[in-house]
Amino acid sequence: MRVLEDLGKRIVFFDGGMGTLLQAKGLEPGELPELWNLTHADVVRDIHSAYRAAGAEIIKTNTFGANRFKYPEAGLLERVITEGVRLAKEAAGSDGLVAMDIGPTGKLLEPIGDLPFERAVEVFGEEAEIGAKAGADLILIETMTDTYECKAAVLAAKERTNLPVFATLVSDDKGKLLTGGDIPSAVALLEGLGVNALGLNCGFGPDLMRRLLPGLLECASVPVIINPNAGLPKTERGRTIYTIGPDAFAGEMREIVRGGAWIVGGCCGTTPEYIAAEVRTCKNIVPVPLVPKRHTVVSSYAKAVDFAHIAPVLIGERINPTGKPRLKQALRDGDIDYVLQEGIAQMQLGAHVLDVNVGLPELDEPNVMAKVVSALQGVVDIPLQIDTSSPEAMERALRLYSGKALINSVNGKEESMHAIFPLVKKYGGVVVALTLDESGIPATAEGRVQIARKIMETAATYGIAPENLLVDPLVMTISAGQENAAVTLEALERIHRELGLHTSLGVSNVAFGLPEREKLNAAFFTMALQRGLDAAIVNPKSQAMMDVYRAYRALSGKDEQCMEYIAAYSGQKEKTAPLSHGEIISL
Amino acid sequence: MRVLEDLGKRIVFFDGGMGTLLQAKGLEPGELPELWNLTHADVVRDIHSAYRAAGAEIIKTNTFGANRFKYPEAGLLERVITEGVRLAKEAAGSDGLVAMDIGPTGKLLEPIGDLPFERAVEVFGEEAEIGAKAGADLILIETMTDTYECKAAVLAAKERTNLPVFATLVSDDKGKLLTGGDIPSAVALLEGLGVNALGLNCGFGPDLMRRLLPGLLECASVPVIINPNAGLPKTERGRTIYTIGPDAFAGEMREIVRGGAWIVGGCCGTTPEYIAAEVRTCKNIVPVPLVPKRHTVVSSYAKAVDFAHIAPVLIGERINPTGKPRLKQALRDGDIDYVLQEGIAQMQLGAHVLDVNVGLPELDEPNVMAKVVSALQGVVDIPLQIDTSSPEAMERALRLYSGKALINSVNGKEESMHAIFPLVKKYGGVVVALTLDESGIPATAEGRVQIARKIMETAATYGIAPENLLVDPLVMTISAGQENAAVTLEALERIHRELGLHTSLGVSNVAFGLPEREKLNAAFFTMALQRGLDAAIVNPKSQAMMDVYRAYRALSGKDEQCMEYIAAYSGQKEKTAPLSHGEIISL
Ligand SMILES: [Zn+2]
Ligand SMILES: [Zn+2]
Ligand SMILES: [Zn+2]
Repeated sequence: MRVLEDLGKRIVFFDGGMGTLLQAKGLEPGELPELWNLTHADVVRDIHSAYRAAGAEIIKTNTFGANRFKYPEAGLLERVITEGVRLAKEAAGSDGLVAMDIGPTGKLLEPIGDLPFERAVEVFGEEAEIGAKAGADLILIETMTDTYECKAAVLAAKERTNLPVFATLVSDDKGKLLTGGDIPSAVALLEGLGVNALGLNCGFGPDLMRRLLPGLLECASVPVIINPNAGLPKTERGRTIYTIGPDAFAGEMREIVRGGAWIVGGCCGTTPEYIAAEVRTCKNIVPVPLVPKRHTVVSSYAKAVDFAHIAPVLIGERINPTGKPRLKQALRDGDIDYVLQEGIAQMQLGAHVLDVNVGLPELDEPNVMAKVVSALQGVVDIPLQIDTSSPEAMERALRLYSGKALINSVNGKEESMHAIFPLVKKYGGVVVALTLDESGIPATAEGRVQIARKIMETAATYGIAPENLLVDPLVMTISAGQENAAVTLEALERIHRELGLHTSLGVSNVAFGLPEREKLNAAFFTMALQRGLDAAIVNPKSQAMMDVYRAYRALSGKDEQCMEYIAAYSGQKEKTAPLSHGEIISL
Repeated sequence: MRVLEDLGKRIVFFDGGMGTLLQAKGLEPGELPELWNLTHADVVRDIHSAYRAAGAEIIKTNTFGANRFKYPEAGLLERVITEGVRLAKEAAGSDGLVAMDIGPTGKLLEPIGDLPFERAVEVFGEEAEIGAKAGADLILIETMTDTYECKAAVLAAKERTNLPVFATLVSDDKGKLLTGGDIPSAVALLEGLGVNALGLNCGFGPDLMRRLLPGLLECASVPVIINPNAGLPKTERGRTIYTIGPDAFAGEMREIVRGGAWIVGGCCGTTPEYIAAEVRTCKNIVPVPLVPKRHTVVSSYAKAVDFAHIAPVLIGERINPTGKPRLKQALRDGDIDYVLQEGIAQMQLGAHVLDVNVGLPELDEPNVMAKVVSALQGVVDIPLQIDTSSPEAMERALRLYSGKALINSVNGKEESMHAIFPLVKKYGGVVVALTLDESGIPATAEGRVQIARKIMETAATYGIAPENLLVDPLVMTISAGQENAAVTLEALERIHRELGLHTSLGVSNVAFGLPEREKLNAAFFTMALQRGLDAAIVNPKSQAMMDVYRAYRALSGKDEQCMEYIAAYSGQKEKTAPLSHGEIISL
């Protein structure tokens, strides 16, 4: 596909709005626009052709709402889409491309609505597959207001077709999606799923969209698409009109292209005239080079956690039945409320990510994991760490997860990498890499660095970038070996410095079998932070660990003007030093 | 003095015992042996000559007890010493050396006895000065059982003569001195005072002394002298006889010389026959090269604190009136008991060194400092840090101090270095060097490293080795500047790595003006330890700081098998993590 190969060498143009033009041709309110592929094929084809003549190179099929919910009858759906693609192909010609256009289902996904995620995947997959079979060149998932629904569509398109997948979202003028997510979280999700380009469409005009572009480019590593409306709609004498004319539109688009967008077109209110002006104005601008961001980011539906910005990332460890009889019982009883309370409490105490481990031999782990992840992401807005030794449970969770997950874990064994890396590649995610392999946990830092390197190199063969690895150099208790902590810290520092990988630790293992474990945990956490630790699995209910976290941030200059520290502690009266060792203990 | 220049190129020989031989010639018990310099000059000279003929190169004058306490009449004392030197010189000849022999006063120093330290200095100084005037080549201070008295003698000899000063001590067969000190503390003291050689004499034979030699060589950086008795004395038919014959003596001495002693002779029970055998056996042995130890060591009368072994060194900060109204009042009232209690409490809680600061504008600081140091060293057995901005108070304390002190402080100002370095050079000590100068405290790590380098280079011009500097890169509160802690830590690491200097910090300054200061102090202490901090001024009554200290040692492998950690905490029941943030605060 020449046009796609040209990406980055020159600006590539989408067409503009379809709905506006169909209405002008007589489409009635309430009428399904996609039916016109069958009933008014010439009108649809003429619109496509006009856009093509205006200079658009990618023609969107008239299939925005062509899904099983709106077209319950399979034969009709297939005909609408197949015809839609055919009409667009006729107009696109041999040099143009046809984008199979997929819009939202119009239904809300569980748990807010009642559309199960996998049902959404099925419905989107059906559309995508018909479109691909009919000869579309790429899949465009557009006007998505919910990243979770968008995930279902992207996943479906990837699973059911081999076509490139573009995805564009609708945000408000602050960059917030309808469902509360922001641009960084959406980008993390979509890039994790492997979209070939992403961006914004509809919602408002290029003037407002231009303001969101820098934030989008700051996190995106794939080509950016901007398809704005012709300004904000207003109603005049009963008709919807748009407020920005073709030349003004083109002028704004020039700035958007100069700012870094590679693929531009238009949405509601735009016409071939707009696109022609846009093409004229933008076609000779040299695209701004795309810089891979190499950020280590996980996300929830609502927010992205960038490991470079939040240092260290606290991963709440409490949703893990090991050594927690009360949680074990809750999992056995299907008492999801208890699990949710644990999640909410950790979030409120300051966890940035929640570990989710439901591994109990007597449970159907994939099902329980799916249930817990679904429920948790309905009540907490921080990312989850999917923590399981069952690849099946891991995949169930990764499909359902409404963001880019932290995945726990892969290790240096061939078997582990073979099972886990395909999941990371397919669903996206940052995967925790444990420095152990078939020979166990190396006793030396050098051995652990070597395993980390092997994992990194193997990940690359699966197409997984180093920034999507979070290496855990493994800490064992010093009660079993004097040098255990030092070896881990050395491995940590070397992995960070020599391999450039981010690191994580399950800090509290260090003190197993010793008295007053929290004192050791807190000191070890501080030491590891000083050696470059990026993330830690901790108990946010541990005052000592949270104290270290806040103190470290204040002392290392990450907590600006110590505002967080002061906010956390200034209400408390200063505890003065106790008079003797014995006293504080008896508190 | 050729013989001294030969040190290290060949073995140098002292003579043997004088008392034994005088008794054989008719010296009565209770008679003052030194009077024989006047009454039996030929006997004394003949003994010296016999030793010289046996191969001894350094002849000890017959002046062991020639001090003002035993010879209250000044004229007599002067004649006894002057004659003693003359007789030894006659025997030594032009190739031999005469050592002005100074033994203990026979009195106990304050506070155990009633001899004021400065009175001892005066008495020793008188002896030394007469001996020097009479033509002695060096001063030998010998058979010292109390390092404090030995200090008085060395200080006196240095102040009142320009001769080389050798000092030998008597220990038990475990290396303990009568007053409780050990070899490392004695070596730290004596090398600090600038002795030219040091070692052991008397007490027992070469067989037992040989066992102490490795411990002595491990800490000594100046030539080592070994002058043993002819074995242990026993009484046979009313006479004291010694148990090791000349050949056996010489055989043991051969091993002592092979082990690293450079200067050997004999003490009680040895005769010219012993020395002849020793010289024959040892003279062709090539001396073991002397390795400067470059240890950073301070000491009390009882123990040495080696900064490389005790990591980190905790300097108890509580004896400092700043912000302590109760201590202020005690100092004003002359309530030394209160100060002593503060010292004892800190020692019991684990301080390795006690800071002593009595600076209050309304006090006569030199006098109060002298009083407090004297009293403290009578009740605590850990080293003191003499902390004052008054050079006069500092010198008073350094004279009186019965060990090698930590000195607080010098800084990069010319005036400060000019005032403090001569004191450090004269009295010995490790001096805390603050990285500030005429331009204030540099805002950058680089600036502080530069000042540390300047201080190090200037110290060298005063003959102060780098290991006797302890650099404090100064921490200011992060509430006054976001980057303050980071700058200090960077300076700390660079000073340690680039200049090879040990470091210290007043950790608790970091949190001034912030709530819950202990949390910040504890985290900052841990961070600094991880960056290479060697010592810290802390409050040993702070549970948080002591927790960090013990946890750091356990985690960094310095606390073997976590024994100290377990001992400190295993009696306590593990505090479980509180249920919520609020809970622990309300404790
Ligand atoms: Zn639109
Ligand atoms: Zn003797
Ligand atoms: Zn050091």
